[in-house]
Amino acid sequence: MPNEAVLRKYARLLIQTGVNIRKGQLLVIQADVQNASFTELCVEEAYKAGAGEVWTFFNDEYIHRQSILHGDEKALSTMPKWRLKQEEEAQERKCAELHLISSMPGLLDDVDHSKAGRIQQARSRAMKPYYAYTSACLGQWCVAAVPNALWARKVFPQLAEKEALSALWDAVLRTMYISEDNDPVQAWEEHDRALKEHCDVLNQMQFQSLHYANSLGTDLVVQLPMHHIWSGGSETARLTKAVFQANMPTEEVFTTPLRTGVNGTVVASRPLDLNGTLVEDFRFTFRDGEVIDFHAEKGSEALEHLLNTDENSRRLGEAALVPYDSPISRMNLLFYDTLFDENASCHLALGDSYPTQIEGGVEMSEEELLAHGGNVSSVHVDFMIGTQDLNITGYDQEGKEVPVFRNGSFAV
Amino acid sequence: MPNEAVLRKYARLLIQTGVNIRKGQLLVIQADVQNASFTELCVEEAYKAGAGEVWTFFNDEYIHRQSILHGDEKALSTMPKWRLKQEEEAQERKCAELHLISSMPGLLDDVDHSKAGRIQQARSRAMKPYYAYTSACLGQWCVAAVPNALWARKVFPQLAEKEALSALWDAVLRTMYISEDNDPVQAWEEHDRALKEHCDVLNQMQFQSLHYANSLGTDLVVQLPMHHIWSGGSETARLTKAVFQANMPTEEVFTTPLRTGVNGTVVASRPLDLNGTLVEDFRFTFRDGEVIDFHAEKGSEALEHLLNTDENSRRLGEAALVPYDSPISRMNLLFYDTLFDENASCHLALGDSYPTQIEGGVEMSEEELLAHGGNVSSVHVDFMIGTQDLNITGYDQEGKEVPVFRNGSFAV
Repeated sequence: MPNEAVLRKYARLLIQTGVNIRKGQLLVIQADVQNASFTELCVEEAYKAGAGEVWTFFNDEYIHRQSILHGDEKALSTMPKWRLKQEEEAQERKCAELHLISSMPGLLDDVDHSKAGRIQQARSRAMKPYYAYTSACLGQWCVAAVPNALWARKVFPQLAEKEALSALWDAVLRTMYISEDNDPVQAWEEHDRALKEHCDVLNQMQFQSLHYANSLGTDLVVQLPMHHIWSGGSETARLTKAVFQANMPTEEVFTTPLRTGVNGTVVASRPLDLNGTLVEDFRFTFRDGEVIDFHAEKGSEALEHLLNTDENSRRLGEAALVPYDSPISRMNLLFYDTLFDENASCHLALGDSYPTQIEGGVEMSEEELLAHGGNVSSVHVDFMIGTQDLNITGYDQEGKEVPVFRNGSFAV
Repeated sequence: MPNEAVLRKYARLLIQTGVNIRKGQLLVIQADVQNASFTELCVEEAYKAGAGEVWTFFNDEYIHRQSILHGDEKALSTMPKWRLKQEEEAQERKCAELHLISSMPGLLDDVDHSKAGRIQQARSRAMKPYYAYTSACLGQWCVAAVPNALWARKVFPQLAEKEALSALWDAVLRTMYISEDNDPVQAWEEHDRALKEHCDVLNQMQFQSLHYANSLGTDLVVQLPMHHIWSGGSETARLTKAVFQANMPTEEVFTTPLRTGVNGTVVASRPLDLNGTLVEDFRFTFRDGEVIDFHAEKGSEALEHLLNTDENSRRLGEAALVPYDSPISRMNLLFYDTLFDENASCHLALGDSYPTQIEGGVEMSEEELLAHGGNVSSVHVDFMIGTQDLNITGYDQEGKEVPVFRNGSFAV
């Protein structure tokens, strides 16, 4: 474990740069019981920064596992009304949300995935009305990670538990631009400026489509909707006007694909941790935006459940560009967690698109969003496609070819 | 820490004998984050015993402390509606409730007690409508304890942390009648029978009043309402018909005093841990049921806040008899936790009385309950009065003296 000064620096970064808590604001924290002591630091820093109240909700993955193994499916599939009320009340009070995730790779490998999928799907459906608060940036939110021993052993299988945990903490802190002697808040201001410059260029180009190709077998054309927006780094909450970082770390710039305009084959370049099940060596074939075929060497069942979640879970909701030489990529680690692995690699996401990525999208109804080419689903699952030899070619408004990525990195 | 087999025995005892979970029933667990791994065992045993669903809510006392120190009083005093909805929904579903407490003595010593008191009072008032579910035994509920390091160091200040924790576990398991080679479920059946025999005798006597006297300075007459009921050990939930143990451990038999019929002085024989503040060397003077004077060498402020909670928090809601030679008493430990210390000693409680302790009480409105001599308050706080030389004399329906306790133990 890092010393308390460094941990406190991390907590302060999440409060100041991550959710950027406002005076008197309600902060809602979701965390894992294993990370209670780090969560306590975050609460302390939140109050120091002026939070009026902090609601902390602890999750326990071992208990979640028990529920899936032995609980009554009907009961578990019915989202309690108080849970919806909780979300409603927090949002009415213009809360900020901090999600401290702590990956537990493999923990759900042996559960009934079809049962787990149905429960997850039912609960997501019930929560859907509340997703816009974060996905449309009404309030500030931040997702960040806290290491745990199980996760550390998965990332560093060659190390003993204590050393593995220490190594994972080091890696996580590096992705967060935290060192013993720097001011990470300032480091993030610089990092954010660099991401914004890439977005500016891409937004000026307004590509009609992107053609992805590499030696893994990816040969995919992704059309982009009219008036699509590339974003990256900080965002501004519409209700509170506070600037925040939704994902920490973040190295990506991203937009939304045209939900009916994806054709060809894409091969995943990294495994995907799907609610605890590892999906490995998988590929999708798209026609007119929809997955019409897929294959996975491992975890095929879990992947199939994801694809069948709802009528739009077979379509894309995000296309993100991350250079192969990004800091996280350079570590050459598989984190078994999307928050990190997506920032090591170009990726796509199945499911919901962010309405913020189409001009005027946040004011649109679901029907309007679909009509403008955005996607609407109860899931949003990133999968990695970036490789060192990935080339992406853009086609601009006149159909002219523009190299966007060459050999895994920005060429534009 | 005890080995896993013993911990599992404890978890099973709480599920089978404590809440006695029914097939398909919802179990609601409240626990401290520090005790997550024991909580996980309880969830596992609950599902094994047929629970349909388990809701687990984790509390973190360090976060609670931060809230009291730095949170906005108005926000904290407003109980969120979802929290009430949560209670309502659990009770509609005829849940069983398991509270795993884990004392943190002294943790709140340095907070603003007046602020803490007002917040506590406001939240208790909001929750009042939901207390009957447990206090009137509609559903099964069980309060039991799980050791933590801070608590262990307080109980065993002469030991190092690891040894102290081990010693506290040993002590707690002894109070629960758990040993490596016994069946604690069976041990509790025998224990329960013994408590029921004492209740039967006291219920037959139907004393008009009890006169408490000892060398500490206690000289108190406590009248009992007409048709009062002495209870002890297991109870039966009215909605589910399941037999359960509300407190584990339990060594007491108890009834409700007449709220207008308490006169004289009572001197506490042990310190009282009041929401983290230790109240020491305190006494109350009663006239016509009400505390008209009090004194505490330490923690006087916290005690005053308690007395001023509402209009009935200065009156008694419980009188309980525990022999000075009960197993917990014989350990001669101060646990700094009411659940244990009350079972080492005769005690009284300020505040709410259990409607179950007057015939027909559970069907009465609050007004009827008050008219029959019961007490209605948003607090219920036990304080210890038993000593080795405590004498209690009962006065029966004809005014005849009957020795109930002599030299700290049952004489009846």
